[in-house]
Amino acid sequence: MPDMMEEKIIEALKEATKVPNQGVILGIGDDAAVTEIKSDHQLVTASDVIALGTHYPEGIDPQSIGHRCLAVNLSDIAAMGATPLWANLIVSLPTVELDWINKFIEGFANIANQFNVTLIGGDTIHGPEFFAVSLQGVVYKDQYIARSGAQIDDLIYVSGQLGDASYGLKIIEKKTVTAGNQLLVDKFLYPNPRVGEAKIISAFASSMIDLSDGLYSDLMKIMSESSVSAEIDVSKLPISTLLSDQLSSEAAINQALLGGDDYELCFTIPANKEMEFLEVHQSFSDPLFTRIGKIRQGSDLKLFNGKEDFVISKEPYNHF
Amino acid sequence: MPDMMEEKIIEALKEATKVPNQGVILGIGDDAAVTEIKSDHQLVTASDVIALGTHYPEGIDPQSIGHRCLAVNLSDIAAMGATPLWANLIVSLPTVELDWINKFIEGFANIANQFNVTLIGGDTIHGPEFFAVSLQGVVYKDQYIARSGAQIDDLIYVSGQLGDASYGLKIIEKKTVTAGNQLLVDKFLYPNPRVGEAKIISAFASSMIDLSDGLYSDLMKIMSESSVSAEIDVSKLPISTLLSDQLSSEAAINQALLGGDDYELCFTIPANKEMEFLEVHQSFSDPLFTRIGKIRQGSDLKLFNGKEDFVISKEPYNHF
Repeated sequence: MPDMMEEKIIEALKEATKVPNQGVILGIGDDAAVTEIKSDHQLVTASDVIALGTHYPEGIDPQSIGHRCLAVNLSDIAAMGATPLWANLIVSLPTVELDWINKFIEGFANIANQFNVTLIGGDTIHGPEFFAVSLQGVVYKDQYIARSGAQIDDLIYVSGQLGDASYGLKIIEKKTVTAGNQLLVDKFLYPNPRVGEAKIISAFASSMIDLSDGLYSDLMKIMSESSVSAEIDVSKLPISTLLSDQLSSEAAINQALLGGDDYELCFTIPANKEMEFLEVHQSFSDPLFTRIGKIRQGSDLKLFNGKEDFVISKEPYNHF
Repeated sequence: MPDMMEEKIIEALKEATKVPNQGVILGIGDDAAVTEIKSDHQLVTASDVIALGTHYPEGIDPQSIGHRCLAVNLSDIAAMGATPLWANLIVSLPTVELDWINKFIEGFANIANQFNVTLIGGDTIHGPEFFAVSLQGVVYKDQYIARSGAQIDDLIYVSGQLGDASYGLKIIEKKTVTAGNQLLVDKFLYPNPRVGEAKIISAFASSMIDLSDGLYSDLMKIMSESSVSAEIDVSKLPISTLLSDQLSSEAAINQALLGGDDYELCFTIPANKEMEFLEVHQSFSDPLFTRIGKIRQGSDLKLFNGKEDFVISKEPYNHF
């Protein structure tokens, strides 16, 4: 397999991600990129890496890896209620195979083009397999949604369905992929960052976070930053029929609480804004947003199932 | 050795890099950071990674690694004539040793504080040893210096002394460090990005690049982006007495041309601006800037030594 040189990989990435994108003054190919921000906007920056063995197992589709390294950063930008614009990508690979890298570029370019993101910087090195992205976006001045704004009695919502992606990862790891569970696997391989949805939400939300470590861990971060507690009715958790076909009710709840890799949004809405929020989100096809609980005074996260307390099965996922 | 959790490492980094820095609206600790840019400025972004084995050998001082991962990005921002402001840091380590990480943080924080850089985002993962930084800075609107501006008859200058750092790396790899060559080793371990100097230069320069792959390779990038050729008188190359004590004259020239890791600047000055440039740079203590050649028509890089052609000893360094 012929080796592609650094310049060729970057050039191929640059060509594959050519979207019209205002504000790029000097793109990829110099010591640094130069971009321009409108004076009524602020810059929003996320930096996340995915590494073989840590974030994904050996042997998965290179398109998924290209997709994933940008998707996880898009999810962070979305969670601020911001609009993604410019990406920097560091590619580290022990060996370069043309076929592999072309598929990786395809995966990266597809999602970059879908969300109108321009690659403004890139670096490729021979090293262990990892992909580091720094993604920049913009938000109207002081209109971003932080983790720290949740207020007592705010309602807790999540987007999408939880637990599918992390269960999909288990299926990959156990090498038990079948036509019947491929959709769960795809939820892990191709997370769908909620960029458009986040903009709707941000008009109403008091706080927001993206679900990467799992609802249980990530909601705790909102609690900690907002100095509040929360209660969750686990019977309300949005669990797909795909997942509930595979697991007992209790196991599915644990998967949804602890699994991670969902890249859905968890956010809080003041009770008096709920009506208006529900009216707007009716315009989406699926039941996209689900109310799962309430912000309370205190510091402990309280889980219940109907009228009974719910005890989680194990320690929350810790990605370090 | 007790394990430090992700939050503690990031918290320690955050505490160690607390510098007054305007424009940070929401710092480290949310899904993404929010910063503000003045309307008469543009954003400049560099993203570089250093990985064990690829960019530095096993066993070097963790302080150097912390220093280095920010320094190489500072050098890129400097090469644009920009002012560094905000850093994102991804730390990937297979194991976390408290002593090691504290030294790393010290190295990172020292140089961050020296250049008034605020850490606005961070992520730590268990993975192969590497450190990825995305560094943002600002420049006055359209006042950045690209690689593409060199004009025929412009004079070619470099800062500092070339070849020391790459020879220092050789000393480390051969495990022949002595008190007598420690200064060369330190040039590799603790590169000094030319941030302040670059601002002086940028008032005069038509093009600029930082020297990471070696003068020969990096000057070619200016040539290619500017569609010009260049001639270099290798007898003019700034070579330290430290290096010339260790090597033959020819070997030292090759080291200076091909060695890489200098993190000095190479830039071009229109001939009619040279006088004024020289007057300004007199204010610096050392003979900081050296004129080494001229931009010419064509595409080949011509090396000569006095009146004779100079032939380089091997293929230019390629970091992929």
